[in-house]
Amino acid sequence: MTEFRLVNGINVDQFFQTIELVKENPELAAFKFRATNTWAEGTHNLAMVKDFYGALREDDSREALVFEIDEPPVLCGWDLGANPVEYLLVALSGCLTTSLVAHATAKGIEIKRLSSRYEGDIDLRGFLGLSEEVPVGYQTIRVYFSIEADISEAQKEELVQMAQKYSPVFNTITKGTPVSVNLEK
Amino acid sequence: MTEFRLVNGINVDQFFQTIELVKENPELAAFKFRATNTWAEGTHNLAMVKDFYGALREDDSREALVFEIDEPPVLCGWDLGANPVEYLLVALSGCLTTSLVAHATAKGIEIKRLSSRYEGDIDLRGFLGLSEEVPVGYQTIRVYFSIEADISEAQKEELVQMAQKYSPVFNTITKGTPVSVNLEK
Repeated sequence: MTEFRLVNGINVDQFFQTIELVKENPELAAFKFRATNTWAEGTHNLAMVKDFYGALREDDSREALVFEIDEPPVLCGWDLGANPVEYLLVALSGCLTTSLVAHATAKGIEIKRLSSRYEGDIDLRGFLGLSEEVPVGYQTIRVYFSIEADISEAQKEELVQMAQKYSPVFNTITKGTPVSVNLEK
Repeated sequence: MTEFRLVNGINVDQFFQTIELVKENPELAAFKFRATNTWAEGTHNLAMVKDFYGALREDDSREALVFEIDEPPVLCGWDLGANPVEYLLVALSGCLTTSLVAHATAKGIEIKRLSSRYEGDIDLRGFLGLSEEVPVGYQTIRVYFSIEADISEAQKEELVQMAQKYSPVFNTITKGTPVSVNLEK
């Protein structure tokens, strides 16, 4: 039986070993994540997530994960799933949370409870093509974290800073990321 | 029995009425979308989507939607759900698809089939704090659309352009959007 240390449910030995391995072989850190989408009808479509590339190999060992996407009736949909801008908040929430927990773990800080809430403002005149002045995307997104741990308020603030600094989704959204959209040949 | 015209599964009369209403009352277009997140353990956390504000009222009529978020074993997780950067691709896929369909519908173009695939490159040295030079978020995201419709290639290209122009998630990601992250008081 192998013994390993868990901090916040993370195998810290594996975590630090991964960091050492990546230091020696930076190409291990190159990942490609993927999704596909099939339109159903109206505002209803289905996304699927399965395979990815990382640590120098293709991995398709997971069962396919399917996500229903729709709009509420007020936006011409049937409420068959969360809508795309809600999925964006889901992505952001998972990423800030994992980033906070991973970097707390690396510092040896035990987290007892962690929750957060997200709200984004959007003016749909952009989507509807009724105004060139309002942003088409979210105007701003607000996030509030509740952290229970035996640390000071200053240390909690530091964790919130680290969550942002190291979160891929936070940085994808706030820094602006190039997306090329093509017609399949 | 009320008759209504469906194009691509969208009630076009409701769609155009909505546009007229919003032209007269721009405040109808101000929406707030929300999510909450509860950390479970390690890289596993759960996001919930339920209520939103829009068309001048709070709407909490939906059942709560829960999303499991985790990492694959190679990233210290248990594969209990898609990971945050995969959820970002799900969000982007739903938004570009709905944006394409809505604007095709407004032009009276019937779509027979529509699918798309997404791939994003990410160098996890950013997340791990091993390099200040690589972006922490996606370096780039590529999208490929397949459109089946009785229209020319040029019209398909135009739909792909409109999908980008009017998609809130595409614009949130590509333009850079402010996100404030706070400690709950």
